[in-house]
Formats: sequence, C-alpha cells, structure tokens
Amino acid sequence: MSYKQIIYTTAPNPAIDPSLNTGTFSVKTVPKPTNVPADKLLVRTHYLSLDPAMRQWLTAKRSYIAPVEIGAVMRGQSIGQIITVGSDLSSKFRAGDWVVGYSGWQEYAVLGAKEVEKVVLPPGGRPTDAMSVLGMTGLTAYFGMLEVGKPREGETVVVSGAAGATGMVAGQIAKIKGAKRVVGLAGSREKCDFLVKELGFDAAIDYKDADWRKQLKEATPEYIDVFFDNTGGEILDACLARAARDSRFVICGAISQYNSAKPQGPTSFMTVISQRVTMKGFIVFDYAKKYASAQQELASWLSQGKLKRKEHIVPGGIEGAPQALVDLYKGVNTGKMMVEVTPVSEALKAKL
Amino acid sequence: MSYKQIIYTTAPNPAIDPSLNTGTFSVKTVPKPTNVPADKLLVRTHYLSLDPAMRQWLTAKRSYIAPVEIGAVMRGQSIGQIITVGSDLSSKFRAGDWVVGYSGWQEYAVLGAKEVEKVVLPPGGRPTDAMSVLGMTGLTAYFGMLEVGKPREGETVVVSGAAGATGMVAGQIAKIKGAKRVVGLAGSREKCDFLVKELGFDAAIDYKDADWRKQLKEATPEYIDVFFDNTGGEILDACLARAARDSRFVICGAISQYNSAKPQGPTSFMTVISQRVTMKGFIVFDYAKKYASAQQELASWLSQGKLKRKEHIVPGGIEGAPQALVDLYKGVNTGKMMVEVTPVSEALKAKL
Repeated sequence: MSYKQIIYTTAPNPAIDPSLNTGTFSVKTVPKPTNVPADKLLVRTHYLSLDPAMRQWLTAKRSYIAPVEIGAVMRGQSIGQIITVGSDLSSKFRAGDWVVGYSGWQEYAVLGAKEVEKVVLPPGGRPTDAMSVLGMTGLTAYFGMLEVGKPREGETVVVSGAAGATGMVAGQIAKIKGAKRVVGLAGSREKCDFLVKELGFDAAIDYKDADWRKQLKEATPEYIDVFFDNTGGEILDACLARAARDSRFVICGAISQYNSAKPQGPTSFMTVISQRVTMKGFIVFDYAKKYASAQQELASWLSQGKLKRKEHIVPGGIEGAPQALVDLYKGVNTGKMMVEVTPVSEALKAKL
Repeated sequence: MSYKQIIYTTAPNPAIDPSLNTGTFSVKTVPKPTNVPADKLLVRTHYLSLDPAMRQWLTAKRSYIAPVEIGAVMRGQSIGQIITVGSDLSSKFRAGDWVVGYSGWQEYAVLGAKEVEKVVLPPGGRPTDAMSVLGMTGLTAYFGMLEVGKPREGETVVVSGAAGATGMVAGQIAKIKGAKRVVGLAGSREKCDFLVKELGFDAAIDYKDADWRKQLKEATPEYIDVFFDNTGGEILDACLARAARDSRFVICGAISQYNSAKPQGPTSFMTVISQRVTMKGFIVFDYAKKYASAQQELASWLSQGKLKRKEHIVPGGIEGAPQALVDLYKGVNTGKMMVEVTPVSEALKAKL
C-alpha cells in the first residue's frame, strides 16, 4: 500500500506554478507505514487547509516561521481521522477520532500526540469547523479584531478580503461586539451580496468596480476606526486615506502582495502621523494561551447562530492542492478554502 | 513705524520656492500698532522656530491642523519679548518678559494672554531653550520616545534625522532611560561625529554613504526594538527590514517625503506582520496635559548636563525665513533651526 505526498520542489518566481512535477510542487508516492511507533498516531488526511500565509512559507526570508525546505512535504494544516493509535497513546486517542494538525500535504501522516488536537465540536458543529471558524482562521479573526483592533461601540470597522475565511469572521465579530458599521471589501458582486445579506455586514464594496474608492468614501461617512487588513496594496492605501483619528489598522495579511516580486506598502503614509494611526502586525500563534477561551466564545456564537461560516471545498484529492492554492490568491473562494483529500463517507467505511 | 510680515502667497508645487515675492512667500510691510488693546500684548519677535511640519501646513489636505491660508502670515512659533502690556494684563506680564507663542512669521505680533507662554528657565537655561529642548521640539521627542516608543532596558533604539532638533533629544532620552544601544542616522560625517562624541550615541550612520544599509545592519546586531522616525522613505524601509519582534516604530515625521509630489511609504511592509511591528503616528499636541511634568524632567536633565542641546541660528532677519525653511529640508542644520529676527542685544536696548 502506498500514498501520495506533495513535495515543495522549486521556489516560486515570484508566482506559484501549479503544474504538478514541472512547477512549484511534485507528487511523490511513498509506502504506507506498516508499524506505527508506540508514541505516534497514523492519521488519514481528509481536508487540507489552504491559507494565504502559505506563499510566505515558501520564501526564505526572516519571518515568523522557518521556510519550507525544498524537497520537503509542503507544510499545511489538515483535519483527518486517526487510523492507528500507537500503544502508548491508547488512553488518550481512539481510531476514528477526528484530529487537526500540521500534517502537511500528504494523504497519511504519522504524528506525535502533541502535534495534533482532538476535535471537540459544539452543538451544530461539523469537523471542518475545527480548521476554519473554530480553528486558526477563526482565532486569527478573533485576536486580530479584539486584541489588536479593539472596536468600540459606535465605531466604523472595515475589513478587506471580507469574503475570505478570516475576513468574514472578523467582520461578524466586530458586529457582535457592537461596532456601529461594518463594511467589507471583496472581489465580486456575489461576495458582496453574501456579506450583506447572509452575514449582516452594513455595506460591502466590490473593489473591482471602477468607482470603488468613491463607494468606500460613501460607506464610511465617519471615517474608519478599525481596519482589519488581509490584502494590503491599494486597498490599504485607500483605507488609510479614510483613517479616523486614533484609528487602529490591524495588519493581518497582504494577499495582494505575496506573489509580487516587489511588494508595495502604503503610499498615503502621511495619514499615519496626521490621524495618529496605529498599524500593528500580529501572528495568531502569539495568543496560544488564550486559544481555549476564544474557541469557547466562537463556539457559543456559532451555536447561537450569531456567527456564520462558509467553506469552499475543492474536491478531487490531494493533487489538486497546488492549483487550489493559486486559486486562493485569485480569490475564487468565498469562505474557507479547503482541499478534500479523502471524502468523508468513504473514510468512515475505511478499515485498515 | 512699520514692521515686516512674511505672507504665504503661492502653494508649493511641490517644493517650496524661497524666492521672496515671486515664490511661495512675499514680504509685506505693515504699520506698527500704536495702541495695544487692554487684553493683548505687543510682542517683538526674536527667534522663529523652523520645523519640518511646516511643509504640511501648506497643503490643503485633511490633517491634524488646518492649512495656512493663502494671503495669511506664515504660521510658526517664535520666542520674543513683550514690548507693551495691555492694561488688563499688567498683573501677569511685564514689558521685557520673554514669551513663546504662535506669532507667525512677523517682526511684531499682538497676542492674547492665552496665545503665549511665559518663559521660565531652569539653571543654565537660555531663552531659546523654551522653543527647542524645553519647548515643542523637546516635548515631541519626549512623548514620542516615552509614550509611543517605550524603550526598555537592554533594547536597541534607532533614530532617523538624529542630528535634527527632535532626533537628538529623542536619542538622548532613550539613553537616559536605559536603552542598551542608541544608533542615529544623519546626513553627514560631521553630524555623525557630533552624535557619538558630543551626545553619547553608541553609533551614528551617514545615510549618504554608499554602504549605509550594511552599516545599519552592523550597528544593530540585535535588531531594532524602537525606531524613532523623522525621515520616512528609504530609511524607514531599511529599518523595517531590521525590525525586532514586537518592535515599536514611532512615526514622528517623514521629512524625506514632505516635498514629494508622490510620497512614498514603506515597501518592506511584510515585516510589520512577521515581526509583529507596531507603527504609530503621533502629534505632540495630544499630550498637552502632561507638558508641565515633561518640561520639568527635561529641564532637570538639562541642568544636570545629561541632556545637551544644539541650535542652528540663521542670522539676518525675517526675510531669510523662506530660504532657511528650504535649507531645513536639505538638512543643513545640526540641532534646532531658528531664524534670528531681531538680535537680542539690540532688543534689550530697544525702548518703544
């Protein structure tokens, strides 16, 4: 028996080339382990999480995490089911348990107990939530909005990449916490409609409209108190030009710049001084000690129907991951982008 | 009797044109008031303060202060001596008192009691200190460094525009407060020598050297915890590339960009996320309630010789102010740039 891994083989220059084996990634087939060490778990991957940060992981710059090495399995979080439990771990895990972990892009992974987190779902939850609204994505939105942005009642909050996994949670949290106006920026009319009609955003602007800057101005009559930025580039600039005094700019991501050979920062930077703007970058890992309580709050909002989630699941197996990653940067998704590695129905039947 | 005013007549495009009457400013001669209203003071200007922020005051953009109107006396702080005290103010002021106030660029000004601040000097102080190290300049450095930058013991602090009035105070305050390393960036070998030899900076880098980036890297082996930025542009970018985790970037000014038609922001902006940088703009006016205690601390450091000041005084009268302002952006000064409107010795003799 064997399984597939996706190996990082060639550095992007600067964009990711999704052509398997000739582009950024290759497929490798390896034998499935016959014996699982006593302190390990054999996990079968069901869904890979695709995240904008991945492009940065391929760049050998000083960053918050070491780059993925050429020749290694591509790094990534996934959700899967335990197939085999090593003998030392039988009191903590059982075959069939759902776990989330940094398995990388491979159909099976042998992981230690500390490398996985058992999925505990709230009423109405589904396994994939543990990787999206109740996982890193939701936590990123939660800490970015509440610990960095800190919206106060009556304030105007703008979110870029608002139809993306993190953006949509960030905007909803701002609304739950009493922001007066929550405005989203997204890349299509459909996404904008979804934000306003399904998620309760007060307004949404399609940044592909020719007059999006004018729309942004009209949508923020009292300027912007909190900007939760996932995109960077021109959108960050336009929002800086609308910054309210003492505003907080949460620098979560800069998806518009990740594939650029020469990334662009904000040019209307003078506003930072004149309006006393605080721009703060953050990494969700720094809040690890507060994950549990945050997840509890996110789960309760989810159960109460205050927080809605949406997923964009790419079927067809692990070989579709490179193209899905490219599509993520193109913005094809509304909500959390995932690759279905093994359909769940089959998995439940699987007996090893 | 008459006196001169410098009037703002033509918007810079984008640079200030110092040619009097044909450029940005004109000279106007007006009659000296014969009667001073009961609630006013007639003040004779001795020194004008020249500040990098002035260029921004000439631009009709949303800012922290309304722009100077075309046709008005150029805005600016000055230090002068009271010539005549209105009858209602005789209990608070006397002819001969030194006062600081926003008189604008004119040889005489009629000002209300609330528009001036009487100069109270510490041992060893001189009147011009009230406009530099103990005035807005010193306060800007004080609050920017201590309330925004917050250097901790053992940290590395970098100051750009370090030989400018604010920069040199900011760097010295960091050192007084226990920063491990204080590094200045300035525009000549002489300025750098001054910073290290006279002010006790640990290192200073001439950003006009071809290898200044390499020098910056070598001078910050443990990266940069606090960057006090007066210049913006490429220097801000280079310092971002050296940002330490959780560093604070105090955005005080961007003198390299003020005269640019298309100001440039930081391009190595991704570091803001990966190193969790906080970039914060500030305006000294927001700290008005704390001025008194800050001035007390600055004065005590000055008296104890812990804080040194330097002034660059341009002689020759008020008509030299436009050229001096242009020279300020060129960086001709080390320390506080002032225009001597009326030499003090003559002033003391003057009897109206």
